[in-house]
Amino acid sequence: MPETNHFLPVALEHASRLINHGPTVLITSSDGTRRNVMAAAWSMPVEFTPPRVAVVIDKNTFTRELISASGTFALCLPGSSLIDMTYAVGSTSGRAMDKFKHFGIDTVPAPVLGLPVLASGCSAWLECRLIPERHCEDAYDTCFAEVVGAAADARIFRDGHWLFDSGNADLQTIHHLGGGNFVCAGNVLQATGAQAPI
Amino acid sequence: MPETNHFLPVALEHASRLINHGPTVLITSSDGTRRNVMAAAWSMPVEFTPPRVAVVIDKNTFTRELISASGTFALCLPGSSLIDMTYAVGSTSGRAMDKFKHFGIDTVPAPVLGLPVLASGCSAWLECRLIPERHCEDAYDTCFAEVVGAAADARIFRDGHWLFDSGNADLQTIHHLGGGNFVCAGNVLQATGAQAPI
Repeated sequence: MPETNHFLPVALEHASRLINHGPTVLITSSDGTRRNVMAAAWSMPVEFTPPRVAVVIDKNTFTRELISASGTFALCLPGSSLIDMTYAVGSTSGRAMDKFKHFGIDTVPAPVLGLPVLASGCSAWLECRLIPERHCEDAYDTCFAEVVGAAADARIFRDGHWLFDSGNADLQTIHHLGGGNFVCAGNVLQATGAQAPI
Repeated sequence: MPETNHFLPVALEHASRLINHGPTVLITSSDGTRRNVMAAAWSMPVEFTPPRVAVVIDKNTFTRELISASGTFALCLPGSSLIDMTYAVGSTSGRAMDKFKHFGIDTVPAPVLGLPVLASGCSAWLECRLIPERHCEDAYDTCFAEVVGAAADARIFRDGHWLFDSGNADLQTIHHLGGGNFVCAGNVLQATGAQAPI
């Protein structure tokens, strides 16, 4: 049974919270025939409503080729159980092989755009439609996109809030320091005057 | 004695590693007369060499006004001891008050651009020169910049690597989930095949 059975839709006005804290993401893409998955440490929200993100994707990657063809991509948030796979798909090209098959990564079709997203080990995904910005794509490898669908594992993100606790360590987000070294975000701290409990 | 006495320069080719894992940053700015500090959760590197970053800064902020005047800003990385201050400077405007004075934040001049950076509680700072990209600034509040100087507290970042351990919890980076709730990045995980130990 895929772990995505634990997934619930995330309201689009809460989508930015999925990547607000800077997790490393997996970018999945497809042109209808070929598909790919790569890791990306450099992404961020740029707007709450409409929900928009920016992600840096090197112009020489197979992923950029697929995104150019389809105008879409998905961001999946790997949990800490996927650090080896995340590092592996971030260190290899999908031009000569199907990395999903090669690394044994099961997928399900995301509900809005139908892109392949990970069937297990991820805490959330965002389905994105590229906003063509040729200059930024060329000059900074920075791709802007609108989030058109989002879902998260209710065991760690529910009602618009992350719920990090000792029971969901495997799903907690990972943050790439470089060279295959990650920090895991799990220790929650609340500022004085914070608006809402986690 | 300011804690910046522990700071050492960071080679510019390693500057991206300071924000590679998505920490919340404090943006400091000055037009020579007025100055400001605000919090920003949305920033990322966009290039290793030359070191370039993108950061989302709302066009209505006083910070944007100061950056427009000077063409420069700094990013300081608050440690976990500064979550209350980070949330406070992220929830107030500097247009009507000097937030450094109001919140009792001591500064030192950064060596390259002379911008005020925090004298204590931060793990690192990056001095940045705006790369004018009017369309992205207008459409996405996204400001691109080149990093022209960087330094870090040698107790937590040395020789181009983060060194998170139980002895430097107060300096560990914080990552905003929303509403004043942060996760602290301290639990280091190494992927199989990782290139270098932390």
